[in-house]
Amino acid sequence: MKNIALTLSYNGTNYHGWQSQKNAVTVSDTLSAVLVRLTGEEVSLTGCGRTDAGVHAKIYVANFRSPTSIPPDKLPLAINALLPDDISVSFASLVPDSFHATFSCRKKEYTYLIHPSKIRNPFYKNRAYQYPAALTLDRMCEAAKEFEGTHDFSAMRSQGTIVKSTVRTIDWCKVERLTNGLISISISADGFLYNMARAIAGTLLCTGAGTIFPEDIPVILKSKDRSLAGPTLPPGGLYLSRLWYGKEVTHVSGV
Amino acid sequence: MKNIALTLSYNGTNYHGWQSQKNAVTVSDTLSAVLVRLTGEEVSLTGCGRTDAGVHAKIYVANFRSPTSIPPDKLPLAINALLPDDISVSFASLVPDSFHATFSCRKKEYTYLIHPSKIRNPFYKNRAYQYPAALTLDRMCEAAKEFEGTHDFSAMRSQGTIVKSTVRTIDWCKVERLTNGLISISISADGFLYNMARAIAGTLLCTGAGTIFPEDIPVILKSKDRSLAGPTLPPGGLYLSRLWYGKEVTHVSGV
Repeated sequence: MKNIALTLSYNGTNYHGWQSQKNAVTVSDTLSAVLVRLTGEEVSLTGCGRTDAGVHAKIYVANFRSPTSIPPDKLPLAINALLPDDISVSFASLVPDSFHATFSCRKKEYTYLIHPSKIRNPFYKNRAYQYPAALTLDRMCEAAKEFEGTHDFSAMRSQGTIVKSTVRTIDWCKVERLTNGLISISISADGFLYNMARAIAGTLLCTGAGTIFPEDIPVILKSKDRSLAGPTLPPGGLYLSRLWYGKEVTHVSGV
Repeated sequence: MKNIALTLSYNGTNYHGWQSQKNAVTVSDTLSAVLVRLTGEEVSLTGCGRTDAGVHAKIYVANFRSPTSIPPDKLPLAINALLPDDISVSFASLVPDSFHATFSCRKKEYTYLIHPSKIRNPFYKNRAYQYPAALTLDRMCEAAKEFEGTHDFSAMRSQGTIVKSTVRTIDWCKVERLTNGLISISISADGFLYNMARAIAGTLLCTGAGTIFPEDIPVILKSKDRSLAGPTLPPGGLYLSRLWYGKEVTHVSGV
């Protein structure tokens, strides 16, 4: 059996996230169905992580075992020809048997996009969260720094998933204004709790709006009280943006 | 009666263009229905031009006459609250009685986006035309210059609309590679024939691919033979991008 890794990207708007579900269309099920058609065998896909309904992936890595004789370099175009065009596989390669898309992933970065404007932009629908007032960038940057390091992120997660530990290490949490006027929040960590990226983005939004102060962040983290932090922002503004398996994965070179 | 001008933008994916049609959803009909609801009066909307089904507008100007007492500065948010979120009005103002969105428009710019890549990008679906090979930018730039000036553009239009003259003046035709890797073709002119922007984009694509040479362009224009030019590219890559009514219209200051 070969162990094959795929690098892909998807617009999550029309999917109930990555993970296979009954009675809902997911990216994993959609991709699996194509792999079954191509290889003629049952396929069990492992993804680098769950993404929620409506969340996007600029980059995503999955792996599966298959006896297929299709050369890996032929797989992306063959798969894409059968996939809907909101999912795209950019690279496929044989990987060591020990490779596991979830457990071999060392670090992930999520990026949240905010469009601060009273007037909505039709091109940002399901792609950036519209906030109808100005945001103070300096405060957001100052607050973002408070999330960096190793903390218990209980105050920044939604209930619903059982985890061994709520401690995670954030390598960087950066806020910047892009040339198109959007505010980008990039968070890289060794792992993310359920809704953690969207809760941090919502809390940073509050610091930009002036309802939470940067110096409140350590207090909120220590409290482990979700109700003290900002809201979980909607999924359409969130992108899985970078992945590291040893070295960083790119669209071009793959894993 | 007041003469009110609106500045708007729309993602054209789900619309059969601007112009009112029977048995098809258009931007004009969608916006008119909202204006009727708000003002309680029949409304006749005039737009700055027709856009084809699936073509987008980063900026668009329309005007209508109404006895409404709603102050213009209250109109954008009131209209947007009732519009679907792929259309957005950014500015409204009272304009002189002589203002006519079609005839007062001096110049328009359309921008066509090409994604040159074997692998499709799910975020460019209906937003940029994927061309599955590399394009030689220098040749496209050289060819673009040949379109500038006053020419008979019969070779760059589709049949279907009766026009007095097929002569138009192109102020600029510019090709550039954007930081995201897309190739952008911007064409400004005093007017555009039916499918003219998409035919020029298709012809420039051919020069980038090497099937038409830059020095062929003047010959093709003189021939008035549509079959010698490149294909009409799909609508999803085309954006009405700039408008001039005397001075340039912006989202912020409006007309």
